[in-house]
Amino acid sequence: MKILVINAGSSSLKYQLIGMETEEVLAKGTCERIGIAGGKLTHKAHGETFVVEKDLPDHTVAIELVLSELVDKKAGVIKSMDEIDAVGHRVVASGETFTKTTPVTDETMKALLPLSELAPLHNPAAILGINACRAVMPNKKMAMVFDTSFHSTMPAYAYLYGIDYDDYKNYQVRKYGFHGTSHKFVSQAAAEYLHKKPEELKIVTCHLGNGSSISAVKGGKCIDTSMGFTPLAGVPMGTRSGDIDVAALEFLCKKKGMTFAEGMEYLNKKCGMLGVSGISSDFRDLCAAAAEGNERAQLALDMFAYSCKKYVGAYMAALGGLDVIVFTAGVGENTPSVRAGVCEGLEAFGVKLDTKKNEFKNDGTVHEISAKDSKVKILVIPTNEELVIARETAALL
Amino acid sequence: MKILVINAGSSSLKYQLIGMETEEVLAKGTCERIGIAGGKLTHKAHGETFVVEKDLPDHTVAIELVLSELVDKKAGVIKSMDEIDAVGHRVVASGETFTKTTPVTDETMKALLPLSELAPLHNPAAILGINACRAVMPNKKMAMVFDTSFHSTMPAYAYLYGIDYDDYKNYQVRKYGFHGTSHKFVSQAAAEYLHKKPEELKIVTCHLGNGSSISAVKGGKCIDTSMGFTPLAGVPMGTRSGDIDVAALEFLCKKKGMTFAEGMEYLNKKCGMLGVSGISSDFRDLCAAAAEGNERAQLALDMFAYSCKKYVGAYMAALGGLDVIVFTAGVGENTPSVRAGVCEGLEAFGVKLDTKKNEFKNDGTVHEISAKDSKVKILVIPTNEELVIARETAALL
Repeated sequence: MKILVINAGSSSLKYQLIGMETEEVLAKGTCERIGIAGGKLTHKAHGETFVVEKDLPDHTVAIELVLSELVDKKAGVIKSMDEIDAVGHRVVASGETFTKTTPVTDETMKALLPLSELAPLHNPAAILGINACRAVMPNKKMAMVFDTSFHSTMPAYAYLYGIDYDDYKNYQVRKYGFHGTSHKFVSQAAAEYLHKKPEELKIVTCHLGNGSSISAVKGGKCIDTSMGFTPLAGVPMGTRSGDIDVAALEFLCKKKGMTFAEGMEYLNKKCGMLGVSGISSDFRDLCAAAAEGNERAQLALDMFAYSCKKYVGAYMAALGGLDVIVFTAGVGENTPSVRAGVCEGLEAFGVKLDTKKNEFKNDGTVHEISAKDSKVKILVIPTNEELVIARETAALL
Repeated sequence: MKILVINAGSSSLKYQLIGMETEEVLAKGTCERIGIAGGKLTHKAHGETFVVEKDLPDHTVAIELVLSELVDKKAGVIKSMDEIDAVGHRVVASGETFTKTTPVTDETMKALLPLSELAPLHNPAAILGINACRAVMPNKKMAMVFDTSFHSTMPAYAYLYGIDYDDYKNYQVRKYGFHGTSHKFVSQAAAEYLHKKPEELKIVTCHLGNGSSISAVKGGKCIDTSMGFTPLAGVPMGTRSGDIDVAALEFLCKKKGMTFAEGMEYLNKKCGMLGVSGISSDFRDLCAAAAEGNERAQLALDMFAYSCKKYVGAYMAALGGLDVIVFTAGVGENTPSVRAGVCEGLEAFGVKLDTKKNEFKNDGTVHEISAKDSKVKILVIPTNEELVIARETAALL
């Protein structure tokens, strides 16, 4: 069985064709500058990279180009489109309308439409991608796989904000969380690695990248997560503030003459690691600067690790115990100092890092970095959101 | 030594006269409706209550009335004003200008003035109270005792928000915390009760009332606290939302046609326990309604306990261990179900509640409610912010 995974942005489109028997990526690539002059497809297959430069006026043209590459004599990996059994689409926000992976039909597409206001930067692009695929492959089975659906098992006392209940009901304002496919993937992979059933484990998954979120996973189900109604909340991120007293923003808006909308732009684009360090949103830059004695870079890194540590602690409490901490995504997989900072001081709770193992060179496999006598296992697991989308789509067939 | 403690609001003024040898309250009372027609003084001394109804056009007249009661033949407890050794004033916000209890002088009063914008509802009233006392008792030694100063020992990585560092520097936007005198009092009282030095202990103090905050106290010093730049942040409260994704408020403002300022009013006055339950901001009402099967009242209580539990967990991690949990203030001292909810699930971390002891009748003394074999001591300690103000003022002399 072969599944095509589509992750559509407003002017870009990423894809992977995955053979489900071996869960191998047969081909993958990216369309850039859709709707903008100077379109470009970068396609990888057979260990080679193929570049096609061609204007891509809309997502339909982009999908057509992708399919022509997939069946191309040289760059292709299949003989005809018929070999694609189904298409899985990444969709960010499910609202409360969908709680799991859902077949694409006229009806579900209609229900998806109003959710765009919950993720105005992401959902409309996903809809463009789905519609383009339906236009080009009208009879193909398709699924929408939501970033938020792994979090739909949170209990009400965890997902509700302390606001007027009617406002929650009328406007669906609540915590949804994001990176769900990643948290799902690494929590399942952790159980597999440890030869345990997910039901037996209390796991805190730390998806730390340019955007970061931390989840509490109990018996295979998410019970809490650090991002909120939007991806602004939680730990400080590359350019996002993370959690902040709303009154602090109101005060800053008054002082700096910003509107609320400008204040939101500020919190999303100019804060976080970039804002605190004054240097960069990139953890590699920050680590390098901190190593050279830059105090504000070090401060940003300290804030990040401390904030993550507090979420680990909060979720230990929410889980009623802790068996595994998982680190994943760009920063989580590649930054030993961040992992060490998060784990530091948690020895009293059975979390004991092996500082040597923590310095492993990332080779794309699972690494166990806890000490032999650590009660809590500490794992670094490369995330694979596309594989989750493919698995979910295959399971739906 | 006798210290007069003054807690001035914009139209009210509370006072206590405390004899420092025994730390006994000699007299206490409240002036109400200052600046409004129908002023009233309620004065308690010798186990009796004395009421004076009299217009109180300003704080100076109110202070004059308080002093006349204190030296009154019947209601009084001292012969003359000379017996008052010093006056301690409660001030909410110290900003970064003051980090500890500070003598009242022309100079410090000048430095206090710009801090009013950090606590516009509280600091201006405190200034009125101080100025009134200085007018009536020009030669008396006085101190300002800040709600925030116990939190001034927080490290930068804990008190900073993930915002532009220059905005922190230019506008002092950071986490300050509140209820500092209460957190200080109960953390010291916990050490005393356990016959330990504060230096030896890792304590989480839960000040749970109509406003609630939770602090992490390590070696006698505060290292983190749940309230933020303002008292809006942290756990959900009587009418305050507590922590919320800023983007959720922006979304609600758009939907409901609220300005940012109206949104802040909404988060402060119409949310929290009141908003979720739809019934009341008062925990007694909520407990009664929940007992009668009201699901939204139960939900509000569950959210509150869960949020507190997560802060306890986060601070366990920040402290690197946990020796004591303290509950204090109206809800913390009087609501066994809240205490049980916070501790539930923390058994894995050595927190074991004695459910029978937890049902004690509040008699104003310290109660140990942990099980005998609980690694972590759980204490209920009646708070006494006035006594801290008196002690700090006496120490300054």
